[in-house]
Order: sequence, then structure tokens, then C-alpha cells
Amino acid sequence: MIFRRLYDDALAQASYLIGCERSREAIVVDPNRDVEQYIGLAKRDGLRIACVTETHIHADFVSGARELAQAAGAQLLLSGEGGTDWQYAFATESGARLLRDGDVITLGDVTVAVMHTPGHTPEHLTFLVTDRATADAPLGAMTGDFIFVGDVGRPDLLERAAGQVGSMEAAARDLRHSIDRFLALPDHLQIWPGHGAGSACGKSLGAMPQSTLGYERIANWALAPRSEAEFVRAVLEGQPEPPAYFAHMKRINRDGPDTLGGFSQPALLADALLSSTLRSGAAVIDTRDAARFAERYVPGAINIPLNKSFSTWAGWLVPYGRPFYVIADEAQLDAVVRALALIGLDDLAGWFSTGAVDVAADARSIPQITVAELAARVAKNGVVVVDVRGRSEWEGGHLPGVINIPVGHLRERIAELPRDKPLVMQCQGGGRSAIAASVLLASGLHDVSNLLGGLTQWESDGHDVERTRAAVPGRPR
Amino acid sequence: MIFRRLYDDALAQASYLIGCERSREAIVVDPNRDVEQYIGLAKRDGLRIACVTETHIHADFVSGARELAQAAGAQLLLSGEGGTDWQYAFATESGARLLRDGDVITLGDVTVAVMHTPGHTPEHLTFLVTDRATADAPLGAMTGDFIFVGDVGRPDLLERAAGQVGSMEAAARDLRHSIDRFLALPDHLQIWPGHGAGSACGKSLGAMPQSTLGYERIANWALAPRSEAEFVRAVLEGQPEPPAYFAHMKRINRDGPDTLGGFSQPALLADALLSSTLRSGAAVIDTRDAARFAERYVPGAINIPLNKSFSTWAGWLVPYGRPFYVIADEAQLDAVVRALALIGLDDLAGWFSTGAVDVAADARSIPQITVAELAARVAKNGVVVVDVRGRSEWEGGHLPGVINIPVGHLRERIAELPRDKPLVMQCQGGGRSAIAASVLLASGLHDVSNLLGGLTQWESDGHDVERTRAAVPGRPR
Amino acid sequence: MIFRRLYDDALAQASYLIGCERSREAIVVDPNRDVEQYIGLAKRDGLRIACVTETHIHADFVSGARELAQAAGAQLLLSGEGGTDWQYAFATESGARLLRDGDVITLGDVTVAVMHTPGHTPEHLTFLVTDRATADAPLGAMTGDFIFVGDVGRPDLLERAAGQVGSMEAAARDLRHSIDRFLALPDHLQIWPGHGAGSACGKSLGAMPQSTLGYERIANWALAPRSEAEFVRAVLEGQPEPPAYFAHMKRINRDGPDTLGGFSQPALLADALLSSTLRSGAAVIDTRDAARFAERYVPGAINIPLNKSFSTWAGWLVPYGRPFYVIADEAQLDAVVRALALIGLDDLAGWFSTGAVDVAADARSIPQITVAELAARVAKNGVVVVDVRGRSEWEGGHLPGVINIPVGHLRERIAELPRDKPLVMQCQGGGRSAIAASVLLASGLHDVSNLLGGLTQWESDGHDVERTRAAVPGRPR
Amino acid sequence: MIFRRLYDDALAQASYLIGCERSREAIVVDPNRDVEQYIGLAKRDGLRIACVTETHIHADFVSGARELAQAAGAQLLLSGEGGTDWQYAFATESGARLLRDGDVITLGDVTVAVMHTPGHTPEHLTFLVTDRATADAPLGAMTGDFIFVGDVGRPDLLERAAGQVGSMEAAARDLRHSIDRFLALPDHLQIWPGHGAGSACGKSLGAMPQSTLGYERIANWALAPRSEAEFVRAVLEGQPEPPAYFAHMKRINRDGPDTLGGFSQPALLADALLSSTLRSGAAVIDTRDAARFAERYVPGAINIPLNKSFSTWAGWLVPYGRPFYVIADEAQLDAVVRALALIGLDDLAGWFSTGAVDVAADARSIPQITVAELAARVAKNGVVVVDVRGRSEWEGGHLPGVINIPVGHLRERIAELPRDKPLVMQCQGGGRSAIAASVLLASGLHDVSNLLGGLTQWESDGHDVERTRAAVPGRPR
Repeated sequence: MIFRRLYDDALAQASYLIGCERSREAIVVDPNRDVEQYIGLAKRDGLRIACVTETHIHADFVSGARELAQAAGAQLLLSGEGGTDWQYAFATESGARLLRDGDVITLGDVTVAVMHTPGHTPEHLTFLVTDRATADAPLGAMTGDFIFVGDVGRPDLLERAAGQVGSMEAAARDLRHSIDRFLALPDHLQIWPGHGAGSACGKSLGAMPQSTLGYERIANWALAPRSEAEFVRAVLEGQPEPPAYFAHMKRINRDGPDTLGGFSQPALLADALLSSTLRSGAAVIDTRDAARFAERYVPGAINIPLNKSFSTWAGWLVPYGRPFYVIADEAQLDAVVRALALIGLDDLAGWFSTGAVDVAADARSIPQITVAELAARVAKNGVVVVDVRGRSEWEGGHLPGVINIPVGHLRERIAELPRDKPLVMQCQGGGRSAIAASVLLASGLHDVSNLLGGLTQWESDGHDVERTRAAVPGRPR
Repeated sequence: MIFRRLYDDALAQASYLIGCERSREAIVVDPNRDVEQYIGLAKRDGLRIACVTETHIHADFVSGARELAQAAGAQLLLSGEGGTDWQYAFATESGARLLRDGDVITLGDVTVAVMHTPGHTPEHLTFLVTDRATADAPLGAMTGDFIFVGDVGRPDLLERAAGQVGSMEAAARDLRHSIDRFLALPDHLQIWPGHGAGSACGKSLGAMPQSTLGYERIANWALAPRSEAEFVRAVLEGQPEPPAYFAHMKRINRDGPDTLGGFSQPALLADALLSSTLRSGAAVIDTRDAARFAERYVPGAINIPLNKSFSTWAGWLVPYGRPFYVIADEAQLDAVVRALALIGLDDLAGWFSTGAVDVAADARSIPQITVAELAARVAKNGVVVVDVRGRSEWEGGHLPGVINIPVGHLRERIAELPRDKPLVMQCQGGGRSAIAASVLLASGLHDVSNLLGGLTQWESDGHDVERTRAAVPGRPR
Repeated sequence: MIFRRLYDDALAQASYLIGCERSREAIVVDPNRDVEQYIGLAKRDGLRIACVTETHIHADFVSGARELAQAAGAQLLLSGEGGTDWQYAFATESGARLLRDGDVITLGDVTVAVMHTPGHTPEHLTFLVTDRATADAPLGAMTGDFIFVGDVGRPDLLERAAGQVGSMEAAARDLRHSIDRFLALPDHLQIWPGHGAGSACGKSLGAMPQSTLGYERIANWALAPRSEAEFVRAVLEGQPEPPAYFAHMKRINRDGPDTLGGFSQPALLADALLSSTLRSGAAVIDTRDAARFAERYVPGAINIPLNKSFSTWAGWLVPYGRPFYVIADEAQLDAVVRALALIGLDDLAGWFSTGAVDVAADARSIPQITVAELAARVAKNGVVVVDVRGRSEWEGGHLPGVINIPVGHLRERIAELPRDKPLVMQCQGGGRSAIAASVLLASGLHDVSNLLGGLTQWESDGHDVERTRAAVPGRPR
Repeated sequence: MIFRRLYDDALAQASYLIGCERSREAIVVDPNRDVEQYIGLAKRDGLRIACVTETHIHADFVSGARELAQAAGAQLLLSGEGGTDWQYAFATESGARLLRDGDVITLGDVTVAVMHTPGHTPEHLTFLVTDRATADAPLGAMTGDFIFVGDVGRPDLLERAAGQVGSMEAAARDLRHSIDRFLALPDHLQIWPGHGAGSACGKSLGAMPQSTLGYERIANWALAPRSEAEFVRAVLEGQPEPPAYFAHMKRINRDGPDTLGGFSQPALLADALLSSTLRSGAAVIDTRDAARFAERYVPGAINIPLNKSFSTWAGWLVPYGRPFYVIADEAQLDAVVRALALIGLDDLAGWFSTGAVDVAADARSIPQITVAELAARVAKNGVVVVDVRGRSEWEGGHLPGVINIPVGHLRERIAELPRDKPLVMQCQGGGRSAIAASVLLASGLHDVSNLLGGLTQWESDGHDVERTRAAVPGRPR
């Protein structure tokens, strides 16, 4: 039999992965939310996770049972004991099998027998493991928060943390009965508990990772002979303060914890951070190239691609004297910061990796319009074209009838634009018009698109160009 | 002669480092704010930067002349030409030498002659370089924004960008006179301009990094024979829109740009970001150990050290359901995020490296008090001690007369604390009391200190302990 | 015009990339062997390398002209001047165009005129560059080793380094005539030489990266007026010792340098190193898995895959007390060294990355044979099967009639194997037999193959198994 | 009690670290050679390793007991049982305490009782662990290679692997007696064995990391009731082939394994590799600067510092057409390979990090001589100075009476040098003379030193210089 204990120091919490050497099927018991560790371990051991279960509804950490079962394509097994108050709310929708006292789970040569051991919680189960390849007797028990090394799971949590007034004495008596029943098992039984020293689920958990029933008979205060009344008094006394968040955890784990979809910290951070920043109204500069921005951008961000003109447009569009943020590929962050500092834009308050845009829930795209499409729409008078190049460029030649507002002045002259017509941004080659589109969208306009290829493409497709004056002295560029 | 051109693509801007091979002295002309590049290059070439200067007051980037002179221990040289309006405001305080037409700077075998070439700006200088080790004639000129490859520096910027109404025609005439004077120099003179193609300081700058006077006579439109009036008209026509930030830059560079103290992006980011976050009232968790926190912390942050109890205290103290931030060593960020996600604290909105605390302007420290000091103050009734352990721990033994509020309840029971007396936080060993101190300080209390060593130290020093009840069953820990 | 100078400090050598801004065609002059730098630079500048050429047959570095032309899909241009002794031997096979005095190369608006300037070498060319977008006069010249800043290319190399007795005076006179002809060009002409200070191709090269003809007239000793005889004496006097390898370089560059196929150091190293190690007879352990080894291995290496049995087989097969080598993925090197040191195999003399096998010229593969194929061949008595498992495993069941030599004893019992028949290695699952095959191949046997799936597959396909004794007490595995 | 199992997959071997929670003292049992893992783990757990011991003399890996005891400043405990043949040869010199049946080791609340359990080996011990903080009965046993999960340690190794003819039956009977004695212990006793599945120290080890005595009574074939004769037959039957290296390991571990002084792979590699390369007569180029080389170099290596002249001197001194090696800082390896390939030196067969020189056993230094010292020795005619500059440099001025052999020709003209006098290498500034010294030393000369500062220093100190001819035309450098 393959036996793996996964211990989390931060939670003082143990999960177990148990598998059959022959059939390579495995069960995971009490997984926490870092589900990748179980999947990775099973893979290294050449095992297939066939079942996922837990001893009880945890109060001290978010359960990973549902997510692991999903991610591993495994059967989810949940306690069906404990009465109506303590039913898993998501059991049905998860296709879970409900476990009851006496049930047996089979994984090749390994069998796991279910024992109902209420006390710490009403629905609590203990799992007795037999490796039929070596003997027909159980060799160990996953006891969850029922029996610890040197202690038992506290029966007062529901009352003290979850507010179930009056429940703790009854729970203590349940615990006593569960213990009495468990003591009938043989001395050699290994005990694999759900917590180690440091957990608030008991008052005197030992440091040893595991024990045996025979040894606990000798060494565990709670297993010593005493009357039920004395046991109840003793087990309720001196328990540590239950952390305030236990009630919250309990509810989450009963009603169905969120799945994380991987333990990927950057996504977690980026999503929350970017949206909270944008809500705050701060300036956010997206330094990706125009095509990437147009394909997927976060409303509110202005696009200034990191190319040779970056400093110039940043100088035009980023406010001096108050904090702003950038979206950049991490590898280019140094270049961005340098280019900004060169022109005195020092109030960079933070940055987001470009991955933040990929995970943003409310990302959008900017319509791109071709010269042919524009020509057709202009003919129907259905669109207002804004030439965002400089005045002298405009004078040197422009599309017939277009408005000229240089991109750097767009924000201050936004009132000149009609709000009731589609706007098309246009420049020489399509670079500045992309910036312009992002500026208008960030300012709250909606029907904005960008002309691909700009005037250059317009001319090369043979369309008319109006000219206001003769060529300027100076070498053509 | 050693000759180095440093070109910044983001600004289309060139700086020059010129040095004597024999004496190893060098001059830097037109440095931008990334001053480390000049220092690094001089070091690689075995040169000492003896002087730093610039051709004129730049409008398109923040000058690095003052900072570089300071950092390199070099003499700062600034234009003394241009009249009273265009004097550097920081010249005196920087101990700068003012340069005038005809001045000569000597660096070993290399001499640099100063020529006043107004037009682009009134104070503009051009530097003629002679390498006396090879010949007594000048071999090249650093022309700044006077002569470019294929163009000249626009004389309309002061009027168009800096708002000096009516100045541009006079400036164009000055420029013509500067050109006429420059044309007297020999054809072989190399021309090393201050900008390349893409700069908004001219209208038709060429892509070649440098040219010669003889070639520019043939190829540069602005050097071709024409009347002064025609020149004035031509040079003012067709200039690109000056970016709005040019006026701002101009003022900064005249009045004295901030020194960055190194081009260190993390510090820039951290400082602005952390202070803006704290101002917003968001929860910030500082995960450094208690000693580091006590020594230097940022007001508003709560200290939950990343150790085995991190998840527990985070569960107690971090608000569920709204964004919060952490301060962490980058190497530990994964562990922090994991420990938080295990208990469902997913709304991590951002993080700060612990370096942010080091650069924070308003950092403070928490007074630490020893058992001996506390005993003395308690005797004088001058202090209120708060035991922040759990109730059952308190019952098992505590300092005489202390209040007991478990750290997890401190915030909701803050009203029970006196506001007019010094508060001392105390626990078993000093860990929880450190957290408690940070919680009170973040809640606006001020006179809060922490008992080093807690009850354990108190007892071991032989002080009295009150006990409320007998020991609890369960193995001692 | 786009102008890029690439300077190599190690060679004090300059290459040039010149291109048309409009057509985006470029030429590279005097590339060295690090051809990726030119390709990369062209890509960054959006240029297509249309032509590659060189001023002359270099003596001080390996030319990259042929390789660059090939890699960039460019036309190779080579000097057709210089007489029969100095013709490029590979011109025809490379499809090169031969250049002669007066030829013109056109790249959009840029033209490059060819001028024959013998002296340093008989075939030496100088390239005069005109940018017709700005003027019709040449603006600069790539002078190679003809005119340097402050010096001229030495005419004595062929005699002193390449052993052409009696050639240097004639060459000096040729040089003088080339200079006289060159002096007719205008003062403003920029001079872009092929070497800087530190080169042994002249005696007094200056540190300036470039100069102008007008300035060199004043400052270059070799251009000063003097009689031809005086010039010849002066130019031959005081030249530095030509490095011994110049003759070798000269021959290589004339006859056709090897192409590197990328400047990839690991391949260079790995190939030479691995083959020299194997030639020396040292033990080489290939730690890749059996499938990768079988697919491609280097003769002489023994395959011990890095898995749980690695230490065991290393203990069996690696000689104690003398140096040995390993082939390993770099990421696994630590694990390999650790596993070896645990069993006292400390004499690890070196390692090769697994990439060394990929580039090895003489790699082979091991035939893999299926159970079906083996059954057919056994029936025809055409093969000798060697069961390389332990004796007790063999006793517990084996293929009918096979020899049993445990893999650990194979080397010492190699004489028991027939040399005239094909050998098939077989074990339980195919792992040990793969090691066995590598051992026999490394010992000089040739007709060795490996049974896929071993006895397990043989049995599961329903073939007969002989048994020697009853099952051993102990749990089945 | 703190309990840590450290399992090595490569060896299928378990070590244990057991400590007292209160006193923080710990014992390590059966450490392997990777001693850093125990030290690191103890540190993380806040434990002091007080004792190090092992269950027996291992045959399958190098023991780390001696090295760990030394490194951790711990008491070494070794078996004193087993008779005169099986005494640790290094016990006395290591100051080890000899353990005998019935001895007790105390670590705070934890006691470890010694039980002599011969069978696998004559001196084999089992350690019974009691945690008096929880109960007075033993809770577990470290059984080494005595009882495994599902098996027992084979008693035939000494005969089969170590050649002790006739010993295995007696050993099997000893094993039976040890088992009988062990079976008297209680069922609840945890069993912590020395090996897991995959070890060759038994025939059917199970995959479970640990077991209990009660369970093994049921499940372990070797503990089932049977006559002694039947046990002896069964335990000797079907054992796997003992690996050939077991005898070697056994001897090493009895006589005293080498200490590694840290598990640092680079040192291991570098030392063996560099010395074997130099023994082979290959060319080795040391690219460190002259000062580092002079201070410490490996005889046989030639010094060509990686500076601007590297390619030149490599072209002079590295043989074309046969493999050579370099010593380089890893960060500079690319630059070295590039500089070599530029001049066609492609046969780089391998490289050594500069650390290899630091660990080289036979490194030496080159005497450096000052101008003042040289002047004194020249006066006494006690030294031959070799000027290794070029001929024309020598002609332009040199020390009186010195020989001139340019460094590039030194090797071919070595016969011109006297073998019976001290040689001093001299050049212009001290760079080439350093290379020259390395060339002569690599060619077998011994009394070679280097003049610091060269001719430049000689002149500047006012010593005489002889001149052969007038200055050469060309700009002075």
C-alpha cells in the first residue's frame, strides 16, 4: 500500500493520499485548497486519484475536496451522517456519493471502512484502512479531528464559534460514545490524525505525526477511564479561544467553497488589484502595442505603446504631479520606468503585468475599420472621422471633410466631438489613432473605432486627398 | 581623443562623452537623467568626468547635468548667455561656472571652445572640439539643437510651447545669424547634433547619427542661400505641434530638476504606492517578524509575522470580502499568498516588498519594554497592562491586576481600553503582544508598547503570578 | 540613410550596416563570424540584408561574409581585383558577384561605388556611399584597412606574415598610388575605417571611431606630402610584429571559412569534449531514460537512467577509484552527483549536457524487439536471449532456454556469450535489459537488441514460462 | 517528542532525527553522506544534534555518521557488539562511545534504549524510543535492517557479498533469536525501519513507511511461527543478487569513510577534471587577469587575460587544429568562446570555472619583481632579462643588455634561453611579460619571474634606456 502524509505547517493540518500498489488507484482524505500538491504527488507515484473525501466539515481552512475531485476527475465522497443541519449543500450538484457508517470504499487491494464518530462535529467520519495484500485486519485509521496524538477534537466549536447555543454538552457526550466504540479496535492500529501541534481544534495536540491506538490508551488523557460526566467537564474546560473566522470557514465548507482553478497567485493579485485601481479613477497606461490593446483592453486604461514615441506620448498624456499606473510586460518594466523618468514622470504608483489584462473580467476590444469600410461609411455620411495628426501634417494633405484634433489635445477638446455619431480615429499610419481611440474610450465615449493603415493606406488605395498648402522646406521623410 | 555618443531611442536624443587619452579627463555634454550610464561608461574607459555641461535648457527631457556633476564630483558648466530671462536658477547654488562665447575648456590635450549660437533658444551654445594630440584645428562640433543632420533647431518653441508671445520671429533671425557665423568653419568639421530623427525639436531631422559641415552645406535645406526673410518664413512653417509637456520640462530644467539619487525603479514605485495605499484606508498586513516590525513600521499596517501561526492570525485580523494588501519579502510572497488562500482570504489586492518600509518617509518604531522596566512602572501605577492571550490561558496564570482581551477580539473591544494611560501589550512569549500592539497603533492609539518575553519572562524573573483555576486535563505543552 | 557601426573590442574591428530608409534594403561590409549580430540589428531596424561584402581578404579574423550572405539570403559581393593570386577560392560556389573598380551597388536611394585601393592587400576595395535622398555627392567612405584614423593599412603583411617574399615594397608603392587617387575626393567625406586603436594592421591607429578626409589631410602622417620613396621607407618602418596566426587566417578567408551555423557555444564545446573523452577510454555514464538512450546514444557510453535504481546500478557498473564522466540534463546534475556520492563514487571527472548526444556526429540507436518478433525469431533458433535478472528471479520463472547472467555480472562474464549470433537482452520489464544492452555495446559487441516489456510482456502475451523452484516466502511484489 | 524521517529515494533508505521538545536535544540515526540535510532540518526545528549513531555497518551506502558528528559537534555512538571482526576501526580516533545491549541514551525527556539484534550483521543494534513527557512505555523502535515492513534484513550478505564463507546459516539463527526477543514487546510499538521497497537488503520490503509490532505479527512472513530450521531455510532462499559494490561499502564504513566537507558538487568536479586534463598534456588557457594568475595558477596553464588583446594573444599562443581548454569565470565564458571563434579557434574541448584553480591541490604562484629589485640584481649580473615586446618597440628603446624575444615567438625560440639562470620577463607595462612567464612555466622552466610595470616603470624610475633607432613616423600612442 502506498501511504503519503501531506502536512501543512501554516494550518498544522494533515491530508492523506493512500493508494493500491497494484491497481494504482488512490484516495485523498481531507485535502486543503492547494489541490495541485495532491495531483502532483499522485503523478509522481504513478497513481490515479479515484476518490476524494473528508472526515468532516472543516472550520479552520477552506476545503479542497470539491475542487480536487473536479480537477482530478475523481469521485467526491461526503459524509451523509450528522442530521439535516449538517448536510453538505453542494453534495447533489457535485454528484457526490454520501457516506454512512459501515460503508466500504475499495481501491484495488485497499479497502477503506467508514465509521461515524460524531463529537467534534455531528457528521464526523473516521476511515479504517485495510491493505488486503498484506493482511485482512485494518492497519490504520484516518481519524480527522476525532482522535489526535495526545488529545481529542474539541466538541465546543459549534457553540463557541458557530453560535449553536446549547450544543456543546451534547456534542461532548457524542464524543465520549465515539471514543468508547473506537477503543474496541486493536492496539496495533496506526492513528493518522487531521491536525498536529498548533491547531486550535484541540487543546493539547502532540508533536508526533502519528501514533497507535495501544499507545494512546496509555498516553492520551481523553482515553483514560472516567465517568461520562467527568469527561464532559474535562473536555469542555480550558479550550482555547476559537478564532472568529471559524464560523465563516464552516459556512463556506458546508455551502461549497469557491474553486480557485489553480493556485496561481499572479492571477489572484492582478485581477483584484487592477480593478480596484481603475475604480479609484487613477490614470493607467497600457504599454502593450496597439494591436494587442485593440484586441483586449481594460476600460479606463490609455494605450501608449512602448516604442520610440513612448516618451513623447507619455509627456502629452500622463498627468504630471499625481500618481499613475502602468500595464507592462515585466521584462520591459525597467525600460518603461526609465523612459518615464527621463521626462520627469516620477509618480509611478504601481504596475500590472500584462497578464492582468488577460484575466480581467470586463475586458473589451476596439473595432478596427479598413479603408474600404470607411470609404463606404463616409459615402453614407454615417461616421465622423477625426484626423489626430499635427496641424502641419493635416495641412499637407488629409481625408476630405475630416476634423483635425491632434491626439495630444484630444482630451481638452473632447467637447468638439459629436456624441451621437460613430467616431473613427485616423492618423498617418494607424499608431497615433490607436492612442486616440484609447483616450476617448477612457474618457467615457463608446462608439469609437480605429482606421487601419491611416492616411497612407487611404492614399495608396487611390482615394482623394485634400491639400491646404504647399510642401514645407525640409527633407521629405 | 576618446569619443562616445550615447543615444537614447526613447528621446531620439544624443549625449556625448569626450576625453583625453593621455590625461584621462572627460567632459559630458547634454546628459539626460539616466546619469549612471555616463558614470559607467567613463569607468569602463578609465576616464574621470571632470566637467559636465549642456548646449541649452532642454524642453523635451529632464536634464541630468546637475545630478551627474554632483554624482561624479565634476565641475558643472552652464550657459551664461541669453539674457536675464534665460538664466539657470540653480547655477549659483550648484557652484556652476557660467560659459560665454569664446570661452575654452581644457581637458588634457583636448580643448572645447564655446560658441554662442542662439535661435532654438536664446542661451544656446555650440562646442567646438580640438584634439591637439593630432592637429591644432577643430575636428568636430557638438551642435545641440542648433544644427541637426539635415535640419536646424526650431526657433518657435518658446512662443508655441512656453507661451512667450511674439518671440519666434526674432528667434528665427537669431538662428540665421548663428548659421551664418557657423558657415565660416571648414568643410571637414564633424557635426555631432543633440537629436536624431523622431525629435519634435525640428521638422525634418535625418537618420544619420552625424554629418560634416561640408556635406550639410550641400544637403541641409536650412543652410542653402536665401534671404533672411525667406529663411524666417521657411523655418517657422510646417513645424510639428510642440508637446504640451515641453513648457513644464523647460521650467524644470531652468529652475533645477530633482535629483533622483540613482535610477532605482523599485524605490520610486514602493514609496508612492505604499503611501497612496495607506491613505486609502485599505488593510495592509506586514508579514515581517515582530522585531523588524517594531524597529521600523509604516503607520496603518498590522503585523502578522509569517510563521506557523500566520494563517490563524490572518483569519482573526484580515477582513473577509474586501481587498487588502501585504508587505512581504519577495521570496516569501508565494508562501504568504498560499497561507492566505488556504483560509479563503482571496482578495489580496497587491503587495509591497519589505524594501518599501525601508524607504517610507514616515516610518516609526514600537517601544519595547523589559520585565524589569514594567515591574517598576506597574509599581508606580503608571501603566495599563493588557494580557492578550486566550481566556483559559489567562485563567491558568497571569500578571496581577491585568486586563485580559484576547488579541483576536482587541479591535471590537478597543473601547474598554483607557485612552489616557500608556498601554503595555503582554502575552506568553511576546509574539501575540507584538501583533496586538500593531493592531492598536493601526486603530489610532499612540502610547502603546510591547513586553519583551511576556509572561514566561515575568515568571522566570521571579515576579508574582495570579491563578484563577487549576490546571486543565491534557498534556502540558 | 540608416548607418550602423558594429565594433568588436576583441578584434578592434569595425563592420558597417548601411540601408535605405525607404526601400529598407541594406548592405553589410566586413562582417566577422558573429553573424547573428548583423541579422539581429537588421531585424530591429526593419531592414532586409540584400548584400554582404568585404573590403579585402582579412588576416586578423575569420570573415563572416560567406556565412552571413547564406544565413540572410543575401547576395555575396567579393573583390574581383588583385590578380590571380588573390582570387577568392569559393567565389563561384557561393554564387558571389565579383566587384571591380567603378562598379556601383544600388540599395534603394543609397548607392555604393566601388574603388580599387590596393596597398594593404592587392584586392583591397574602398566603398563610397551616396544617399541620393539627401544629395548626389558621396557622404562617406568605408575604407577597410586602406585609410585608418591617423594611419594607413600596412603593406608589409603579405611578406612578413604570409611569406610572400619581396612583395612589400611594391605594395607600399601601390598604397601610395591609392592614396593619391583618394585625395581627390572632397574634404567633407566621412571616413569609416575597418579598424580602431589596438589593431596590428597598422602602427598608429587613433582612438576616434571615424574621421573626415579634410581632417586626415591635416592630421594623418601618411597623407602628408613626401616623395614616393620616402613614403615607402616610412610606411615599412616600425610596423609591429605580425601575429603568427595571420597567415592561417589569410588562407582560411581566401579559401572559404567554415560556417558555424550559429554562434552556439554549447554545441561547440559538447561535440569536441564528448568525442575526446570517449576516445580516451574513460567510463561515461548516460543518465537519460532507456528510451531516449536507445533512440540515440554515443558508442562507448553506458546507460544508467536516473531513477530510483540509479545508485544501485551505478554501484554495480561504475568503476571505483578512477575518474568517470556522466551525461545528464543540467537540471538533474545535482541529483546525479548526490546519488553517486551517497555510495562513494566521488571521482566524477566531468559531465556533458544531454545536448552533447544530440550534436554528436557518430550517434547510433539500439534496436528494440517486441515479444512477437522475439517469439518468431526464437522459433527459428536465430537469436540468443540473455535474461539479465537476478538468479532467484530467474529460478522463479523464465523464458524457455535462455541464458541467465545478471546485469551486474555481465561485464565479467562476457566471454560466455556467443559472438556470432544476434543477442537479445531481456529482464522483467525492460529496464535492466536496456542497461545490459548498453554495457555489451560499450564492450564492443554489435548485434545487440533489447526486448520491450521483458518477461512481464512475454507472459501477458501468453507465451510459455519455465519455473525452477516454488515461490519464495515473502510478500509478492 | 519531535520525530523526523528522512527518506532517500535513490537508496530506498531512511534516517531518523528524534528530539526532545523541551531540551531541544536530538539524535540522528543512520545518517547517509548528505549530512547537510540533517543539520538543516535540526536548525529549522530549533534542535541541537547531541548524538549521532547508526544501527549497523551499512553495506549499501557510505555512512555519514562520522562526518555528521564532526560537523554538528555531536557525540558519535557506535555499536560495541558483534565480536572482534566487526569493530569500527575508527571508533577510538573519533572519540566514539561504544554502545552495548541495555545501554540508554538520554535526550531531555526522550530516552533511547539499546537492544543488540544480530542477524543481518553481527553488530546490529535496535533503538527503543520512550517519550517520558507522555508515557513511560516505549512508543517506537528504530529497527535498521533488522525488521522491515513485511520482511527482515537478509543474513546472507556477509557471506555472499563480503566473502565470509560459511557465515550465513549462523547469522540466520542469530536473526531468529533476535526476532524471538523482539516479539516480547507490546503490539502498539511503532516500527521505523532502515529501508523501504527497492532495497537489496531484504527480499520483500513493503511500501509503507512504517508499521507496528502488532501488525507485523500478523502480516510479516518472517515473524510467523515456524521452527528455527524452517526459518533458516526460508530466510536464505530467494534473496536477490547482492550488488558487487556492497563489499566495498562494508569495508569503507567499517574502516572509516572519507568526509566530504560539504556536499559541494562543483569542487568535486573541478578538482578531478582539471588535474586529469592537465595530465593529458592538453593546452589549457587561463583567462583570469595577470595578477590573479600570478598569485595562484595551476602548472601547465597559459595565462591569456580576457581583455582587448585576448584574441591577438590567443591567435599567437593557442594551437590551431587540436582541442584545448579554458579556465574562465562562468559569466565570461560566452565572451571567451566568441573571441576565440572570431579568429577560428573552434576546437574548445571544455572549460573550468576559475573556482577549479582555488581548489587545485598543486597550485603555485609566480614571483613578481619590482624595478628596484631588478636593478639591484642586474648590477650583480645575477639574472637574465627577456624583453618580450615586438622588435620595433625594442628598437625604440629597451633596458641595457636585454634579450629580445617577442612573446609570440617565445615557445619556438625557447632554446635561446639559458637554463641555469633566473629569468625575468619584461615588456612595456607588465601585461605581455605575465603571459610570457606563463608560457615558459608551462614549457617546463622553473625560475621565472615577472617585472612589475615593465619598461614604463623602469624609465619613470630614472634608469637608463638604450635606443637603436629614431622614432617612427606615425602618431605617438
